[in-house]
Amino acid sequence: MLNDEDLGKILGDTGLAQFGDSLLNFAYSIALTETTGRPRGTKIQDKILADAAAKAGLRKHLPRRVGRGDVANSLEALLGHVWLQKMITLEEIVVCLKTENLDPSKNFSALVEIALSKLKQQS
Amino acid sequence: MLNDEDLGKILGDTGLAQFGDSLLNFAYSIALTETTGRPRGTKIQDKILADAAAKAGLRKHLPRRVGRGDVANSLEALLGHVWLQKMITLEEIVVCLKTENLDPSKNFSALVEIALSKLKQQS
Repeated sequence: MLNDEDLGKILGDTGLAQFGDSLLNFAYSIALTETTGRPRGTKIQDKILADAAAKAGLRKHLPRRVGRGDVANSLEALLGHVWLQKMITLEEIVVCLKTENLDPSKNFSALVEIALSKLKQQS
Repeated sequence: MLNDEDLGKILGDTGLAQFGDSLLNFAYSIALTETTGRPRGTKIQDKILADAAAKAGLRKHLPRRVGRGDVANSLEALLGHVWLQKMITLEEIVVCLKTENLDPSKNFSALVEIALSKLKQQS
């Protein structure tokens, strides 16, 4: 089982968050391009990621009094980690992000749940 | 053979440039992470891309009097196009960007040359 300390380290890793940011922006750009049938690229807003992280319960693994940017970073770091550890593929992320959803943060919170379950299985 | 008009359309496509931006930032983040052994993420500077596009001769396919941003965009659009058309893989891009080079724009100009040759072969 993954312990809370290890999870906390992953979620607070700035390099991982930067890496995960580029991963998620690319995956989201592919999802948008495939859904709309036209090439698109976009940067996901921190608010959407922070909402998703809160919905999926990541906040309780973070230090108190962290700001929205850090909450968003924790989601990016988590996804960056599971991708680098080959626990999830780019295609799996894209499929999840292509799900039709009125609230875009729901797809990202689903991603967090997948990432956490993979992390718990394999550690 | 690819004609100049078609190439000009690809190079000037804003959506493709946005898509290519997310692709290249992710590929460059993987290259940095694998080279340094630590997760990193970064946004490639327009200056580096514009220098690379000029080196690889893309400028002559662009309208006159375009600014540095548009020149950088043309490189992103070209790479976005060849990736979406499955003429190049993410792994091939990463390998090219991992080449040790004192001048980082050289790896990007090598990428442009690869992309142009693939485009000419397959069209």
